[in-house]
Parts: sequence; structure tokens; C-alpha cells
Amino acid sequence: MKAKKPTLIVDKGKVLRNIRRMTDKISHSGGNIRFRPHFKTHQSAEVGDMFRQQGVTGITVSSVDMAIFFALQGWKDITIGILLNPHQLPELKNLEDSITLHLVVDSKDMVMTLARELDRPLNVWLKIDTGYHRTGLEWHDREEILATAKAAAPLDNVNFKGLFTHSGHSYNTSSVQEIKQVYHDTVTKLRYIRDFLGQKGVQELEISIGDTPTASVMEKFYGADEIRCGNFVYYDLMQVELGACREEEIAAAVACPVIGRYPQRDEIVIYGGAVHLSKESMVMNGQKSYGLVAMPDEMLQHWGPALKHTYVSSLSQEHGIIKTGHEMLNRIKVGDTVMVLPVHSCLAANLLK
Amino acid sequence: MKAKKPTLIVDKGKVLRNIRRMTDKISHSGGNIRFRPHFKTHQSAEVGDMFRQQGVTGITVSSVDMAIFFALQGWKDITIGILLNPHQLPELKNLEDSITLHLVVDSKDMVMTLARELDRPLNVWLKIDTGYHRTGLEWHDREEILATAKAAAPLDNVNFKGLFTHSGHSYNTSSVQEIKQVYHDTVTKLRYIRDFLGQKGVQELEISIGDTPTASVMEKFYGADEIRCGNFVYYDLMQVELGACREEEIAAAVACPVIGRYPQRDEIVIYGGAVHLSKESMVMNGQKSYGLVAMPDEMLQHWGPALKHTYVSSLSQEHGIIKTGHEMLNRIKVGDTVMVLPVHSCLAANLLK
Repeated sequence: MKAKKPTLIVDKGKVLRNIRRMTDKISHSGGNIRFRPHFKTHQSAEVGDMFRQQGVTGITVSSVDMAIFFALQGWKDITIGILLNPHQLPELKNLEDSITLHLVVDSKDMVMTLARELDRPLNVWLKIDTGYHRTGLEWHDREEILATAKAAAPLDNVNFKGLFTHSGHSYNTSSVQEIKQVYHDTVTKLRYIRDFLGQKGVQELEISIGDTPTASVMEKFYGADEIRCGNFVYYDLMQVELGACREEEIAAAVACPVIGRYPQRDEIVIYGGAVHLSKESMVMNGQKSYGLVAMPDEMLQHWGPALKHTYVSSLSQEHGIIKTGHEMLNRIKVGDTVMVLPVHSCLAANLLK
Repeated sequence: MKAKKPTLIVDKGKVLRNIRRMTDKISHSGGNIRFRPHFKTHQSAEVGDMFRQQGVTGITVSSVDMAIFFALQGWKDITIGILLNPHQLPELKNLEDSITLHLVVDSKDMVMTLARELDRPLNVWLKIDTGYHRTGLEWHDREEILATAKAAAPLDNVNFKGLFTHSGHSYNTSSVQEIKQVYHDTVTKLRYIRDFLGQKGVQELEISIGDTPTASVMEKFYGADEIRCGNFVYYDLMQVELGACREEEIAAAVACPVIGRYPQRDEIVIYGGAVHLSKESMVMNGQKSYGLVAMPDEMLQHWGPALKHTYVSSLSQEHGIIKTGHEMLNRIKVGDTVMVLPVHSCLAANLLK
């Protein structure tokens, strides 16, 4: 079988193993830690069903559109993990008619907007910045956190659930030990705030955390009520580089037709470019790379190990250039299919969904 | 008016001016140079109609799917500018029933595949590599070029039209003078090959070229039968940096809702990330940037000049971080809309089409 055009291939056996490993780890962690996987990575009804079969009932998404999509797939408990965008409140109020929604805010202004706009209670989490510096109130800004929590807690139409963070700085680490340190640091900061707010009368707050690097390297979770990682379902080269997974655990690749062969410069060209793989790149062995390359099986359902000395060196809109050696060039002809292991599977899956 | 979610805003007045400038230049260049604009940038039926109103009848696209889309919009003369992917021949044969198709190949193998598979003549161009080193036979490889041309020329079902190139190395230049040099160099090489093939009995070949940097900076075209540039319709920051356009000529921007405000680090966060803008980046003033920021008018149809000391410094899947100063922070609140001028408009337009 050959790929007709760039196609996302999901190895379901690997997906199932990735999901099971995480569900098992959460259930063996003790406490009542819930799994609320992030579905932005796959955005797939079918992969969603695989989570459902493992007992998952609550999910995270990163846009209102995604929440609507998964609500239509029967998901009844959805957290929208991006900060509340006030212009989408009408859609959110509609959605709340049929499912349980959780929203995230990081300012008193947005709490007051909700207080004004909502007709009935909605679950709201306070985003805390534990070091990633994207969104959230800074964890050490006790005054602002207290003021926001105090504004939210007494409201009838805001069900103030707890503290929410994404420790995305786990991606800027250089060892598994450092990743674990991000986990310890995250729960320490959030528990500190929870205790502080408790002393000030804002009680029974939960803690929701989640990023794939920490979720992958921790042997056991503690200190959180909810884990929201998402990328682990497919993994990718970025996670391999971090030490969060092994290459064999990457469960999604892009099947690309070979359209050109250039022995004089040891390159092949694929139909498969920035609109299929995204322009996410990483430096591997000193070279900027947009992906590694593996050979598919006959049915285009599985693939072998990444080929040595072979990588996607350049991407334009629809073309990819693969740098390789004579051996690979001799094996490959125009019309063949190669599998590109993505640098960042979330973006490739979004483009090919 | 406010953006509800990241939305591509096209300034139609600017688009029309960009199209007219190029059509005028081509018609004033003399000879019978045809314009065959690349539609991969906009992928829009409506923008396509604006070209039609300026007298354009032939177009270029970069995928079979795009060819089918524009055929359904009434376009009757379409070049698929990416190398022939043999697995898509069935779709191409269907398409050829209703429109005039032009295909591009760069090997005898693909010429022979066409000879075997086609029932009736189809227009075929030979891709030449004039220095970009993506696809094509190397311009100085006279032997291989002659052998391929000799294979194509006598075939009944291959209407061998001419020589085709994309001088994408015009993007790796550092002055307008250098860009012009790429143009001169391109036509010199292609005419050399055409003359050489003519002497060997392969006659009446046309020359098709096209890339936005050279098409923008040349005052007049010469030496080609066909110009295929596409990006100029919207332009973007990459073209400004190259000197191919002025910032005021950028005709597409992404309207993004502001969802977070962080005065302590002079940053705002927008709903607008890698899945809306693409991860294409460039270095501006020593900083990696994913876009510049401008303020929209009331109706979200136009925008002002790029704000000073303000740029998109980081993108994750759905979030963008904008680095700015106190002045901008004081003007902006959550719920406002900002316009992001894209680094590469083709990729942003593809994501938001």
C-alpha cells in the first residue's frame, strides 16, 4: 500500500499502551487522583473512545470549538484549559445546558464578568503561574491570588473549584531529574497557596496539574487531585529528546509520498510540507530537523526504527527535503512512501485531522 | 467589533492593489508574458475572483486537492506546481476531463509513467533546478535534461510545454540587488537550456518562472513566457525583511482576542497560537519573532502600523505571548482584539482558510 498524500498514521497498539501506562500509574498513585487527559493532541473521536474504554470520563480541551466537538461525541465533563475568552461566553452557556463545563480564569475582572453573565453555576478554576510564565497569577503573589479567590468564592453562579496550572517549563529541562524537580516544585507551590487560602477562609480547593514530561517521568503522582497531560498519547521527537519517552513509544507518524530523488546531493523530496507537519523544528546532532524518517510496513499501519543519518532538513508549504545517505537513496524510488516521525505530534495531528 | 476567535482578516483594498500592480507590470513588460499566479497563498474562491476580474485566466496550485477546489470555482486552466505524484494520476485524469491541466516532472521515469498511463495528451513541464536545490534536474546537467526532453518530446500523450522553475533561493538574499540577480540568473540559465535543446531538435519550449521576491523587485519582466508568483497577494513580514514589499502592503493579518495581561513582565497573551499562525519565525532586531502586532479599526477590516517594541515572542498550540511595553499594556484589556501581521502569510492563510 502507498500513501496518496500526506496522511497521519496512528499506531493503535502503541496508543493503547500509552493510555494504559498512564491510567495504571494514576490508579496506582493512591489518593483519589483523577485523570483528565488533554484531547488537544489527537482531536480524534476514535482516540477519544480508546480513553473511554479505559474508564476516562472527564477530559481537557484547548478551545471552545474542541469542547463542542467532543460534547457531540458524548463527553459530558469537559475542562477548557485555555483562559476564558469573554466573547465566547454565549457558546459556553449553550454548552453548559448539556454537559458539565470547567473554565479557567486568572483575574478578578474575569471572575466579575462570569458573575455578571452566568445564569447558573459553572465550575471555575484559578490559573496559577508556577514558572512557565505564559498565563496565570504568579504563585508568590499571595495578595492578588487571595483577592481573586475571595471574589470568586462567595458567588452563587461561580463554583470555585480550585487551582490550575500547566508547568510547561518542564519542556525547558535537560534531564529527567530536572523534569521531576518541576513536578515537585509545582505541587509544592500549589499546596502552599491552597493552605494559605484555606487559612484565609477559602477552603476545599482542588489542585489540577498536567504536562506530558512530568507525567511521563514520575513513577507515582502525589499532591494533585487531577492530572491533565495530553501529548503522551502519541508522543513525538521532542519528548524523546527530553527523556519523557522512547522512540518506540511514538504512536503517530505522517506517511508521505516520495516525489523526487537527488543522488548528487543525497536528498529525497517528499510531498509533505509545513501544512502537514508544521514548522516546529528541533536541533538534533547539531542539525535543525523537522522530523526523522522510518520505513512503513506493507499496510502503512506500523513503521520501523528511525533511519540513521536521515532527517527532514527543510520544509516549504507542501514539500519536505530529506537528507540521507547512499544506502537509503538506493532503496527509495519515486512513488514510495516514507514515514516522518514528527517533532511535535500535536501540531501535525491538528493539520491532518 | 471584537474577534471571537483567531480570524484571518483580508484587506481587500490592499489585495486589489497588490494584484493590479503585478498585472500592470506584466502587461507593461512587453512580449507575450502571461500571468499564472500561484493560488496556494490564499486558497480562497473570493480572492480568486478578484484575480479573474483583473483578466487572469490561468492559475498555479500546489496540490491536486487545490486544483479540484479551484476547478469547482470555474477555473479552466490550472498548473499543479508540485512534482507529479504518480499515485494521484487517477484524480488528475478525471480533472483533465473538464479543464486544461499542466503537470511538472523532473525525471525520465515520470515521463514514462505518463506515457504509459495517460489516454490523451496532457501538458507537461520539465522542472529545472536553477539554484534552489529543492526539486528539478540541475540546470547544468545537459545530458540528463536532453535525455528527459528527448523522451517527452515525441510522445503522443505528452504535450511537452517547456521549462519550469521556482527560484526559491531568492528568499536567501540580503539585498534587492541580490534578488534581481536571482531573476537575471534564472532566465539566463533557462534560456541557455532552451537554446541547447533547440539545437538538439527539441523546439518551441516555453519558460515558466515565479517567486514573489524577484517578481516584486523587478521593474519589468523579460526572458520568460509565464510568471507564477503567489505570495505577493498578501505579502508578509518575511517579504518586508527581504525588501520585496513595504509593511503597508501586507494585506492579511490575524485578528486575535486578548485573554491575559501581565504588566509585571510587559506581556499580553492572545488566543492565537501555532494552529492559527504557524510556527514560522524570523529574527527581527535580534529577537525570534512569530509576528508583529497592529491595532484594528472599529470594524476589524483594517489595521494601523505595526506597534513599536512589540512582537509575538512565543507560540504554543493555541496561545501567543506578545512582548510589549507599558504604553501598550495600558491601552489593552482582556477581550480586546489585536492584529498579528504574519511572518509567512501562506501558512497562516492555510490554517485559517
